[in-house]
Amino acid sequence: MKKKRIMNIAIVGLGNIGSYLYKFLSANIKQLEKKNTSKPKIIFISAKNIKKKRKIKIPKSKWLKNYMDAAKSKKVDIIVELIGGAEGPAKNLVFSALKNKKHVVTANKALIAKYGDDLSKIAEKNKVNLEYEAAVCGGVPIIRSLKEGLIANRISKVQGVLNGTSNYILTSMYKDKLSFQKALKKAQDLGYAEANPSSDINGDDVASKLKILSSLCFNSFLNNKIHIEGINFIDKKDIINADKLGYKIKLLGIAELINNKICQRVHPSLVKKTSYIASIDGVLNAVIVDGDPVGQSTIQGEGAGPEATTSALISDISSILRGNIKYPFSISKKQRKKIISDDMINRVFSAYIKLDVKDKHGVLSNITSIFSSNRVSIKRLIQDPNPNKLSSSIVIITHNCKNDLLTKSLKKLEKKAYIIGKPKLIRIEND
Amino acid sequence: MKKKRIMNIAIVGLGNIGSYLYKFLSANIKQLEKKNTSKPKIIFISAKNIKKKRKIKIPKSKWLKNYMDAAKSKKVDIIVELIGGAEGPAKNLVFSALKNKKHVVTANKALIAKYGDDLSKIAEKNKVNLEYEAAVCGGVPIIRSLKEGLIANRISKVQGVLNGTSNYILTSMYKDKLSFQKALKKAQDLGYAEANPSSDINGDDVASKLKILSSLCFNSFLNNKIHIEGINFIDKKDIINADKLGYKIKLLGIAELINNKICQRVHPSLVKKTSYIASIDGVLNAVIVDGDPVGQSTIQGEGAGPEATTSALISDISSILRGNIKYPFSISKKQRKKIISDDMINRVFSAYIKLDVKDKHGVLSNITSIFSSNRVSIKRLIQDPNPNKLSSSIVIITHNCKNDLLTKSLKKLEKKAYIIGKPKLIRIEND
Repeated sequence: MKKKRIMNIAIVGLGNIGSYLYKFLSANIKQLEKKNTSKPKIIFISAKNIKKKRKIKIPKSKWLKNYMDAAKSKKVDIIVELIGGAEGPAKNLVFSALKNKKHVVTANKALIAKYGDDLSKIAEKNKVNLEYEAAVCGGVPIIRSLKEGLIANRISKVQGVLNGTSNYILTSMYKDKLSFQKALKKAQDLGYAEANPSSDINGDDVASKLKILSSLCFNSFLNNKIHIEGINFIDKKDIINADKLGYKIKLLGIAELINNKICQRVHPSLVKKTSYIASIDGVLNAVIVDGDPVGQSTIQGEGAGPEATTSALISDISSILRGNIKYPFSISKKQRKKIISDDMINRVFSAYIKLDVKDKHGVLSNITSIFSSNRVSIKRLIQDPNPNKLSSSIVIITHNCKNDLLTKSLKKLEKKAYIIGKPKLIRIEND
Repeated sequence: MKKKRIMNIAIVGLGNIGSYLYKFLSANIKQLEKKNTSKPKIIFISAKNIKKKRKIKIPKSKWLKNYMDAAKSKKVDIIVELIGGAEGPAKNLVFSALKNKKHVVTANKALIAKYGDDLSKIAEKNKVNLEYEAAVCGGVPIIRSLKEGLIANRISKVQGVLNGTSNYILTSMYKDKLSFQKALKKAQDLGYAEANPSSDINGDDVASKLKILSSLCFNSFLNNKIHIEGINFIDKKDIINADKLGYKIKLLGIAELINNKICQRVHPSLVKKTSYIASIDGVLNAVIVDGDPVGQSTIQGEGAGPEATTSALISDISSILRGNIKYPFSISKKQRKKIISDDMINRVFSAYIKLDVKDKHGVLSNITSIFSSNRVSIKRLIQDPNPNKLSSSIVIITHNCKNDLLTKSLKKLEKKAYIIGKPKLIRIEND
């Protein structure tokens, strides 16, 4: 048997994921050699704090003091970037690596969502791979499925539960009847949420993933126009109200091609309890793709954690080990299109609206007249006095109407003296 | 831009799938050229009955009288085999094509399940691709996901709803309370079942798919030891009984690696109504893979029909258009293993058992003593008098016990004079 070519790997960043990858890769060299046309070898490791105590032992000879040397070393074929963040070291490393004709594997969704177009231009020019399966939904092989398994299809819609942390929080609030804060704390205690969980709960993480998916699905350049809402304004009461009405609340990322325009949005949604998407609980992720001719395809799995992420990183590394050189966004930059964005204003939704109001005469009539004058028609209205008996909570389910009219009505209501706090709007999806 | 190499394609077999593929491929040449490194061109078509009236128009110059010429022609790079069947013309064509160094794309699960090892040996030797994404679960990109997206994982179990026809029948029996015969007739009327539906309902179709999946998952040669039961013995009453007990009945294909032995089985199973697998209704297919380190991954989508199958065929063709030469079974034949089979005898199940009995004194006591002497312990027993009042139907849910003891008990019962018809056994899965 001919001896296989060795591909030298540098891993930069050695947190939970980097450490797990190092261990797994070291233990599975032979298995990967069997399945691919060249053999992987880790030659360098770099991390911010070399002296930090780690559970894994790394030979001194592999430590690289300056991570940027990985991008410059003639010995390195593949750089695995696990630093994170769209700017700073991660950005410098990946740009420099591609310019120096190294293949890059990254789990960095923020970087790809922001600089993916520029990076792919360099990768394409230098005929190296830029692989980012691990950046979207951890172990769920959605990037590879879009680029290869579903290559025949014209995709009109991609949607899903794309963030395990927020989904874990919403699931805990539903199942264990926890408040948002308690559910967040629990997620942090279990390692499902970081000490600073902001990008997970404010929708930014989902937005990065959705931009990448939408670009791949619609053969377009990355599109920055995106409507983003997080889950931080949802409380236990909303979860209970939704439950009574037959819904669960999920943070969805949805990108659609409508009349040749792209509409990208991230927001909590009420989904029917009996729907497939409602069954995606805990840290699970799921992506649903509407394609022609294939119909609807769904891929579901572990969205985060060192194990699942390593599964994705290894699939990227293996692709390079097989010499499977590909355009980073499936087609050449010359063929990618600039697609106009559609505005949320034009989209049509039914919605769950929750208002807390002072208990005064004429309030209900005033509210309904505001909706009516904005052409929002009400399908269901439930008024419940609050325990203090001085205020009531009103839950409204609207019929389908333009997003614009929904938000206008809420803005009008906000100004009314009888409204306590901020009125809430959660859209209903696929009803 | 450099002109791309042209890859010449011959399509052999022009039923529903072949016709749809021809239309789709002809209409999407440019799109496929954009996404791949060479350009596809259909140069030959062959089918059994050339003179048959077809909905599509094919230029005379493309018609090949003798399909075997496709395998021999120097012009042809890729042969798409859509004849079907493990023997005869399909077998001759594919063997000859690979011997003549043509890439082969096929939707033929029977052929791959039977001759996949021999075929892959030739493909490997001649450095051509043998692609069969369309052979397993139509448009669901499971083969590519196993070979690439989940390449890092050691897989311990693969299971799923792998046949759309039988699943449609079981779903109709459940939802519309139809008899097996009426549900089959409905499936035939809607084009979901063929005039001769035997391989769909007797489990053979699932068995072929499961053998292929299991070989890919466990890096083993194809394994012929497989337990197969179909759905033809299930009647409306079983569906209703299961429903009352909180279950749906699904035809599952399950392959597991247990103590380094492979256990392959295809049989109807009772699955909890709230489980994910119970939600796979109608013609949908779903495959669940347990992998280390990724955890559980699920892929779901349209399992059959010309559209979904074409999606899979095009992904196979595209893989060849990108020059992505791969071992047909993920690793070289030298690395594939012969794995011993485990016998169903050793497996442990709880089960649903249904007996029809003559209403005589002492019958129940005799039945329970037979189970007891075979160490089958009963969790639940429901006896209902039949409308004629001369007989009763008895439904038993057992505790977990060895498969062997379950079948032994049933064999003993079968011989009893008080038993009407054949006792039924349906295993309960993932309870």
